[in-house]
Amino acid sequence: MSRKTDYHMTPDEFRAYGRQVVDWIADYYEWVESKPVLPGIEPGEIRAGLPEHPPEQGEAFEHILADVDRLIMPGLTHWQSPNFMAYFPSNVSFPSILGEMMAAGMGQQGMVWKTSPAATELETHVMEWLVDLLDLPAAWKSNGVIQDTASSATLCALLAARERVTGGEGNRSGVPGSLVAYTSDQAHSSIQKAARIAGIGDERMRLIPTDGHMRIDAAALQAAIRADRAAGLTPFFVCAAVGTTASMAVDPVREVVRVADGCWVHVDAAMAGTAALCPEFRWIHDGLEEADSYCFNPHKWMFTNFDCNAFWVRDRKALLDALSILPEYLRTAEHESGAAIDYRDWQIPLGRRFRALKLWFVLRHYGAEGLRHHVREHVRLAESFEAKVKAHRDFDLVVPRNLNLVCLTHRRGDAFTERLLHAVNDTGRLYLSHAKLRGRFTIRVSIGGRDQQQRHVDMAWNLIEQTARSLSG
Amino acid sequence: MSRKTDYHMTPDEFRAYGRQVVDWIADYYEWVESKPVLPGIEPGEIRAGLPEHPPEQGEAFEHILADVDRLIMPGLTHWQSPNFMAYFPSNVSFPSILGEMMAAGMGQQGMVWKTSPAATELETHVMEWLVDLLDLPAAWKSNGVIQDTASSATLCALLAARERVTGGEGNRSGVPGSLVAYTSDQAHSSIQKAARIAGIGDERMRLIPTDGHMRIDAAALQAAIRADRAAGLTPFFVCAAVGTTASMAVDPVREVVRVADGCWVHVDAAMAGTAALCPEFRWIHDGLEEADSYCFNPHKWMFTNFDCNAFWVRDRKALLDALSILPEYLRTAEHESGAAIDYRDWQIPLGRRFRALKLWFVLRHYGAEGLRHHVREHVRLAESFEAKVKAHRDFDLVVPRNLNLVCLTHRRGDAFTERLLHAVNDTGRLYLSHAKLRGRFTIRVSIGGRDQQQRHVDMAWNLIEQTARSLSG
Repeated sequence: MSRKTDYHMTPDEFRAYGRQVVDWIADYYEWVESKPVLPGIEPGEIRAGLPEHPPEQGEAFEHILADVDRLIMPGLTHWQSPNFMAYFPSNVSFPSILGEMMAAGMGQQGMVWKTSPAATELETHVMEWLVDLLDLPAAWKSNGVIQDTASSATLCALLAARERVTGGEGNRSGVPGSLVAYTSDQAHSSIQKAARIAGIGDERMRLIPTDGHMRIDAAALQAAIRADRAAGLTPFFVCAAVGTTASMAVDPVREVVRVADGCWVHVDAAMAGTAALCPEFRWIHDGLEEADSYCFNPHKWMFTNFDCNAFWVRDRKALLDALSILPEYLRTAEHESGAAIDYRDWQIPLGRRFRALKLWFVLRHYGAEGLRHHVREHVRLAESFEAKVKAHRDFDLVVPRNLNLVCLTHRRGDAFTERLLHAVNDTGRLYLSHAKLRGRFTIRVSIGGRDQQQRHVDMAWNLIEQTARSLSG
Repeated sequence: MSRKTDYHMTPDEFRAYGRQVVDWIADYYEWVESKPVLPGIEPGEIRAGLPEHPPEQGEAFEHILADVDRLIMPGLTHWQSPNFMAYFPSNVSFPSILGEMMAAGMGQQGMVWKTSPAATELETHVMEWLVDLLDLPAAWKSNGVIQDTASSATLCALLAARERVTGGEGNRSGVPGSLVAYTSDQAHSSIQKAARIAGIGDERMRLIPTDGHMRIDAAALQAAIRADRAAGLTPFFVCAAVGTTASMAVDPVREVVRVADGCWVHVDAAMAGTAALCPEFRWIHDGLEEADSYCFNPHKWMFTNFDCNAFWVRDRKALLDALSILPEYLRTAEHESGAAIDYRDWQIPLGRRFRALKLWFVLRHYGAEGLRHHVREHVRLAESFEAKVKAHRDFDLVVPRNLNLVCLTHRRGDAFTERLLHAVNDTGRLYLSHAKLRGRFTIRVSIGGRDQQQRHVDMAWNLIEQTARSLSG
């Protein structure tokens, strides 16, 4: 009847289908380990199963759900499988999924305080909790905001730096051709992309060489900054990486800040930051109190659904000066009085989801203790994997293991290592990705999935080792 | 036991709590209409209820759910109430919530094809369906991508335009100080913000005057472009609005394109685009086939949870040239061969959620027929409201109604209209927002919520009219 009058699904239908979807999700986590991690399909295969034209009449929801299994499932790469050790962990948890569900139901739009006081204030609050949990500089409290990704956080930091150094001239009349930004040759591609977007450009984005541990060479950074200043240019931004993508290298933040000569120093700890939950890993943040901004991704290693990047700035005003824009239709009394935070001024887009809810669920469900347990366990698993690599005469560690990432090559060289990677991935039993480190084709084994245990890591090693032997024939 | 060993919620616990959350959501939609739309709290009240420090030990999920009702609910602004007529509809639907739930469970990360073929190909597919459904230019098929918001889509369009006109010079060495962008004085603040971010700046972002219907004055645009060219500057980007924020005005796209003189023309139909589901409203897109890019927000008026912006470009290569960056660790065989789409090159961030799933659910559940029914009904409701305003001697329409938005003032003037707005909102029975139109303080009545019916619109009118009478004493 409801469909006939207004096409909406009724609340009771939603209760029924909602249960089915909940069960579908629970089932998924129960069987995902048993399935090939990669779907093993060719581009175009998923689309080939879909009808060319959209339906004129609505369809029964049972059909839609059945089509998820029939048409969509065959095209999933199983990021949540414990046999996924590619790229980085993107570890989801049930409490976080429940948070996403509830946020979707609430349908909040938290662009300004007034349009969702709860979304705004819970966000401020959990971001302060994270300052406690990671032992970040206390002065950052109240200066945190959730971004979608580290890419966006970096862009915001770079824009704040740009406007600080130009006194707002960038926003008023464009970007002077003298500004220079710095990061290491191991930094994430999003740093360079942010510099392009913000009107700096590749030519004034210096990629500083790294040392034997793939960490930025602070002396080379200092020399580059001095040379640019001597040439009449304006160094304004340095991005340090705490946990590089290729090898999880940790730049020496204290040294970077010391030589940065007034540049805005942004610290990108997208992957590694979560480790600071544990006091024994807090060395990764040494020197952080002098940095200008910082971010890490709860959506990587902290059981929170993508997207959720946690971003702080030391000087809130610099960020707001760069990103605020206030049309009449968004003016509110709470903004005018300064009593409330309007997070639209802390990010690139205007609209924003209620992301703090899932983060709150995760922090409360696990507690600091539960989160630390998993970080320690993941690092221990990576250690155990590293030990096997070290003990085997055919494999080399390209760099010493950092936290939860092991980088290895086969002694037969790049071509063999690449063949090995593809052969391992083709089994469907494991998914690994690669990087180039010191010019060598390197297999990355990234630990940190929600359900990864010793047996998964052992299986991974055995599979790699056996596959290498069989390829060596 | 599970908690003791690894702190995770078990699948069976998730089944149980998932049901509770599903019921919570269904309940919410059953009672939200009866509650004040605005929470009526002061900044700081929500935070005051939250513990200062994060929990050391994990907490029972029952407590967390109870705290949602106790601590979070009092701070929600009820965007999903049929009495919410502020800003714009952000209409959620049950099928879309189910899509969000399932996407959260799948935990896909669709940055490149290989990391989620299903997320990638379903996105391409539903974006083609939308070309059919809105009768957009057929040449755009395969050139669509989902962005988080129209703000981001605009920024991407502006960057593509910047790189096209500079031949890639912007990305290589920075933004020339000669580039000039244009939009109307009614355009959304995100256009100006994008110009700041991309290194253009306010001084070279021309806000062209509008006509009596708040549409961009094409002759004035042409004159501005000509004057800038004569002054040796380089006009490169025009943003036309199809449905301005303040008054839902529709810029004459055909005229804009005609006078744009080679500029990249981006059409921002964030709010109004959904209307093109219905042939009788497709006049809003007249001339679109000559535009370079276009976006609208299924997350506003098309029953799809925020965030979901649908963005197309005419020339895919121009977008990719502006936004592609390819580090070694993201190289895949499918990318090298050109067989697959890697959507990370179509947006600002690297990571991306599986947003296409909820959109697919919505399109299939409602069908074209169901979506058209609601758009027509919402416009009819707005017409009925407009008729009451017209018939009343104390109120004026500031501009003729456009689609689902009615803009009114009280004849006693700005101060009275503003008092009226606040008095109405203070009742909690209705939430309206405002704009300045032709210098006048204007109340905006925005129709388009999922459950809005005649009785809600009648109630809104009666409340406004009675409140005005009582304030008039």
